[in-house]
Amino acid sequence: MVPLKFENGKVVWLNTSAIPWKEEYKESSNYEDIARAIETMEVRGAPAIGVMAALGIAAAVYNSQGDVQTLYQVLNRAAERLSRTRPTAYNLFWAIDRMRAKANSLISDNVSPEEFKERIVEEALRIQREDIEINRRMGEIGSQVIKDGDVILTHCNTGSLATAGFGTALGVIRTAWLQGKSIRVIATETRPLLQGARLTMWELTKDGIPSKLITDNMVAYAMRYEGVTKVILGADRILVSGHVANKIGTYGISILAKYHGVDFYVVAPTSTIDRTGANEIVIERRKPDEVRTVLNMVDITVKDAEVLNPAFDVTPPELITGIITEKGIAYPPFKDSLKKFIE
Amino acid sequence: MVPLKFENGKVVWLNTSAIPWKEEYKESSNYEDIARAIETMEVRGAPAIGVMAALGIAAAVYNSQGDVQTLYQVLNRAAERLSRTRPTAYNLFWAIDRMRAKANSLISDNVSPEEFKERIVEEALRIQREDIEINRRMGEIGSQVIKDGDVILTHCNTGSLATAGFGTALGVIRTAWLQGKSIRVIATETRPLLQGARLTMWELTKDGIPSKLITDNMVAYAMRYEGVTKVILGADRILVSGHVANKIGTYGISILAKYHGVDFYVVAPTSTIDRTGANEIVIERRKPDEVRTVLNMVDITVKDAEVLNPAFDVTPPELITGIITEKGIAYPPFKDSLKKFIE
Repeated sequence: MVPLKFENGKVVWLNTSAIPWKEEYKESSNYEDIARAIETMEVRGAPAIGVMAALGIAAAVYNSQGDVQTLYQVLNRAAERLSRTRPTAYNLFWAIDRMRAKANSLISDNVSPEEFKERIVEEALRIQREDIEINRRMGEIGSQVIKDGDVILTHCNTGSLATAGFGTALGVIRTAWLQGKSIRVIATETRPLLQGARLTMWELTKDGIPSKLITDNMVAYAMRYEGVTKVILGADRILVSGHVANKIGTYGISILAKYHGVDFYVVAPTSTIDRTGANEIVIERRKPDEVRTVLNMVDITVKDAEVLNPAFDVTPPELITGIITEKGIAYPPFKDSLKKFIE
Repeated sequence: MVPLKFENGKVVWLNTSAIPWKEEYKESSNYEDIARAIETMEVRGAPAIGVMAALGIAAAVYNSQGDVQTLYQVLNRAAERLSRTRPTAYNLFWAIDRMRAKANSLISDNVSPEEFKERIVEEALRIQREDIEINRRMGEIGSQVIKDGDVILTHCNTGSLATAGFGTALGVIRTAWLQGKSIRVIATETRPLLQGARLTMWELTKDGIPSKLITDNMVAYAMRYEGVTKVILGADRILVSGHVANKIGTYGISILAKYHGVDFYVVAPTSTIDRTGANEIVIERRKPDEVRTVLNMVDITVKDAEVLNPAFDVTPPELITGIITEKGIAYPPFKDSLKKFIE
């Protein structure tokens, strides 16, 4: 199952908001459609939206006519629109910057319009291919921390459906399972959009990995009574200080892990590490109806109830055991270990 | 709005599983119906199910014919059935025991069948009336810990809909609000059955108390960024050691409160205190479909997903600031302070 494809100049994506009810692909060559698919979270997960944005830029350029300057303007318009989709995931900006850098280098090289198109599409496909390779490498590296008998708690979805394929945290779990390690997984449902219940349980079940679903308020219970030995989850943005923005709930889980003496690992490609030197993270607030309803299917509270709906929270470095990347595992102090990975 | 009534020999109850969509009353004089209404959580909340069971016993006796011995057998059959509805809430057993004790004393007094019926109904109504009085007293006592400007996080529903009326933790919040204190409430939605989103938000909105709804995984975020100053919630069973069984999620919230330096108060009548000297609490496991679906309206995961579904968890005394009862506030060491309240 390939969640993202580039076919005949079109981006084809698996609409993850329809999982587990149906496996439905959508397609478009229009970057506005691609941007909306990211905003509405038909495609979600930091690595996946980075790849999706790159493919969207490629499609925009591929389907345009004109001289290189015209194609360059199309690329910039697409890049600008796609960068306004979601503010927190760093991979999005990293992928868009990489597409822009490629365009600038092609301009310097005075390439033809045909070559410009071809090389831009190539770059997007390279980002996609590299993401899968990086996921497999993180799987190899990360699986070394997993032992026979581990009970692993994970949050949200960090699998094939969150990446170009294979997965980050779920890729690590998958690799350990493929190595024959005897493990069990506990997946949080991850309100409001239920990526754990819908996507992670779907992936774990397809792979036959023993797993149990819990509501988000059962994490402490699972640690206390179900023998959780490790937390392994993803990241949307990592500061060089070791602060990790990830799906809302992660920060709470990290505190509960500390309290119960459970190791807490973050798995993310180094493209998640914010290279701007920022020491703050913008947290996306999404629409109130995500909380007032379940997937817009059931109203669960009084009309016009006020809600909070931050999509992410920030886990401080002192609550993190290690950050697993394709370049190795960063351990505290992160400001040294992470810095090495992006130099 | 009175959630429980005894009218013409029938128990009339507000079906809280239909809130906030409709306000629907049901009625029956058959204790099997009463037991099922407790099992399916049409009536829920530890004090409410205690009162419901007492009224169910009263209805069974009221509608039976025969000599006192026959009525006594009816009472015992109803008591036995009702005690098998839910294992964790102590008030249920406390109320049933009180009805049995009253019956035994009436037998000793050699009363007539008519008097037996009358006095049994009286006892159930007294339990109901006392519950409201006790709630108001807890409101007065507990509101003393609430200050202007407090941001109070609460979990599940502990209001009129969880008691004979007024509420335990929500009664304390309500009293502080009626005293004119400027407070704000953050309510967790409380999966799987969403009592926070459905019931607490409904009660808070009716009372005009400023409130915001969050998903269960936003608690740490709310403590970190929304200035939560206190956690105030209920209890289903309290051991004399100070261990508190309450709605799943409570234990996690208590750890997060400790981490953020937020006071953590439990509000419950002394009828919640387990007098058996037990040092373990049986935790009810409910049906998997409560987790696999949202209120049986939407399937949210793969078919036959394995789940955990404990209805409660246990918070240890070291994470509790104080336990607010109708006899005063118990502070650590609880084994001394709580003991005094039940002597």
